[in-house]
Amino acid sequence: MNNNYQSMWKNLGLDLNAHDALLQVLGKGYQDIFLAQNNRPEGMSYFDFVMSEVHGLRIKELMDEKDQGRKIVGSYCVFVPEELVLAANATLVGLCSGADFVMEEVEKLLPRNTCALIKSSFGFKLGKVCPYLESADMIVGENTCDGKKKAYETLNTLVKNLYVMDLPQVKSEQGKSLLKAEYDRFKNAMEKLTGVSITAESLKQAIQIVNAKRSAIHRLSALRKANPVPISGLDALLANQVFFYDNPARFTESVNKICDELEKRIEEKQGVFPENTPRILLSGCPMAVPNWKLPWIIETSGAVIVGEESCVGERGTRNLTDESGQTMDEMMKSIVNRYFKVDCAIFSPNPDRLNHISEMVETYKADGVIHYSLQFCQPYLMESIPVETALENKNIPVLRIETDYSMEDVGQLKTRVEAFVEQLT
Amino acid sequence: MNNNYQSMWKNLGLDLNAHDALLQVLGKGYQDIFLAQNNRPEGMSYFDFVMSEVHGLRIKELMDEKDQGRKIVGSYCVFVPEELVLAANATLVGLCSGADFVMEEVEKLLPRNTCALIKSSFGFKLGKVCPYLESADMIVGENTCDGKKKAYETLNTLVKNLYVMDLPQVKSEQGKSLLKAEYDRFKNAMEKLTGVSITAESLKQAIQIVNAKRSAIHRLSALRKANPVPISGLDALLANQVFFYDNPARFTESVNKICDELEKRIEEKQGVFPENTPRILLSGCPMAVPNWKLPWIIETSGAVIVGEESCVGERGTRNLTDESGQTMDEMMKSIVNRYFKVDCAIFSPNPDRLNHISEMVETYKADGVIHYSLQFCQPYLMESIPVETALENKNIPVLRIETDYSMEDVGQLKTRVEAFVEQLT
Repeated sequence: MNNNYQSMWKNLGLDLNAHDALLQVLGKGYQDIFLAQNNRPEGMSYFDFVMSEVHGLRIKELMDEKDQGRKIVGSYCVFVPEELVLAANATLVGLCSGADFVMEEVEKLLPRNTCALIKSSFGFKLGKVCPYLESADMIVGENTCDGKKKAYETLNTLVKNLYVMDLPQVKSEQGKSLLKAEYDRFKNAMEKLTGVSITAESLKQAIQIVNAKRSAIHRLSALRKANPVPISGLDALLANQVFFYDNPARFTESVNKICDELEKRIEEKQGVFPENTPRILLSGCPMAVPNWKLPWIIETSGAVIVGEESCVGERGTRNLTDESGQTMDEMMKSIVNRYFKVDCAIFSPNPDRLNHISEMVETYKADGVIHYSLQFCQPYLMESIPVETALENKNIPVLRIETDYSMEDVGQLKTRVEAFVEQLT
Repeated sequence: MNNNYQSMWKNLGLDLNAHDALLQVLGKGYQDIFLAQNNRPEGMSYFDFVMSEVHGLRIKELMDEKDQGRKIVGSYCVFVPEELVLAANATLVGLCSGADFVMEEVEKLLPRNTCALIKSSFGFKLGKVCPYLESADMIVGENTCDGKKKAYETLNTLVKNLYVMDLPQVKSEQGKSLLKAEYDRFKNAMEKLTGVSITAESLKQAIQIVNAKRSAIHRLSALRKANPVPISGLDALLANQVFFYDNPARFTESVNKICDELEKRIEEKQGVFPENTPRILLSGCPMAVPNWKLPWIIETSGAVIVGEESCVGERGTRNLTDESGQTMDEMMKSIVNRYFKVDCAIFSPNPDRLNHISEMVETYKADGVIHYSLQFCQPYLMESIPVETALENKNIPVLRIETDYSMEDVGQLKTRVEAFVEQLT
């Protein structure tokens, strides 16, 4: 495929050699991790195609949209409301942040003790290997954790089109009013970027499009309650990852198609792993493409992942935006209400997250929880200890993992995960 | 002195053996670091006395105040407005956080990769060795960095009287209105705690008391412009540390008395170090008692510290609260205006801090800047890199230090500091 896209990548300013090398590693990793799985649903072939073209056809589509005057908005966080982007006739894409790249360059700009996700986002920029970043007409940062908040000050010196959204830290009335003010400001910024006025009609339609995407993912999640589980955690994670990249309508259709297939599998008691395989709820930090290390370790250690309590997972997709609003004010309020419920660890206190983890354990009949923190991610590392204590008080086994994107600890992690899975059986 | 206070400490619930051991280490450290200095101003004998009685007489005074119905409020941050505490007839004290204590217990509650200051505050609680914490009727936490914000959730399970203040992250109108709302809420909390209504008169008087304390410190700082420097950085830091503990009026008087003496010294060209000793501006994280490691290394390596760009230093004491307000509303507005200017690294962006560092270099005729970050303190670590770049672009030498409270790196730090000082001469 590369030959067709070389000039496109070159025009985007990518470092072609480095980018080729990245695609090779990505392709090899995908083969070893995803294609090596057994009993995959046929519908996953769509996602295999999407991933094989994630820097190719999808970027081509974005470039075609740009040629037609549509704007591309890049984001690093689930607090950026896709509804407002779509309503202004723009496209929202997640930006690359799941692999280490030119770390020696990154560590000239960021402290070594910065989480892998933030370092990665800088690595993709400095290494010139993220076509999403380079094609974005606006990059949206957000004041979530200290690491991202402060890193955007430096990212702002590397890119010309960074927009930073402030976020509350407390779920108070004052906090909600801050989010409302920031979403109003973002709505204006979208209109200014695109030259398109957001109307009640366009916003209503955008809400429906994003809700449909979330509903498809909710349907997929619900099917993972079955025993045996009809889809692997890796494949379900992949769908959650592609959520951030794909054309929304096509994504919704493709996920629903897989769900049709999974329903048949469930009827036929057909699973990707044997019945009564130990069931794991994965909880914690988001996993951006191609950060598949821990799920791969878990699912090659005798367990199956039945849910992701993560921004790339239920934390990101939980709750629909209320569709009953008719006026702009009503809809903006619904959007604020929906996002204000996101139980990110940047909020203090954040009791909803603990409740959601417990609920998910019950809903998906998980035998244990693996809590995943990126090293130096203070919000999730801080929460991991009270989460562990609370779950163990309910007799739910917990394994706390702290890692980064390197492969150095794979052996050690596998040993720990295997021992944990062993105790669940 | 210990015999007189044993029963008081016991009543406060301190672990007497551990506390005795702490006082011994503290006393020994004070002797080796402070009393070993040459040419100290005579007025420092007041601070020597204060430090020798920091867990004794000062606590006795607080207990006497409590006996008379006055409330004690403990704080970990310069954003807690002392004006409102005093106006409600209560006393504000800084809480212990400058030394490692029972780290193995602390690391059961907090991630290992948490900054030393936060871990220390937990260590003093778990080890039962902070009489300030134990005598406080209210402990005020604040949503500054992620580490503190999330740690307060756990501290809340260890103490019964934690009050958490939310803080803005951006210097916007929205951010200022959040600070205003939080200071209004804190004012009500103070009134509720003490049963004393804050009046325009009591608030005006409180503003004057706190301003007088700040003015005395400003006077002390200004005298450090002289060459030779009439007071060591260690002794000036000590005054800035005692700022958080002492009776405000007595503190003001004592600092002014030292200033009288320093003025004479300057007239007589008398210094603590020889004329033209290399002058260092120390910039970065706060240094709580007894965290004297780095200043001690610097001032035993051929340099003198002429200013602290720190919460325990000019970041904390810069700017008086406007005293012209007559009504409660006007004074509350002045208080918000004063604290909203604090250039803490939790704000994004935070250009004022860089400007202040440059200004301080010029004002105090510093030959170089040593930037001090606590390990895992993301906000200051993140800022240290652009700070270094900006200063070096102005040909101001910078040494970036990242350390904790342990003594393991003293040798290595001393080598680096000596090499840095060498290049300044």
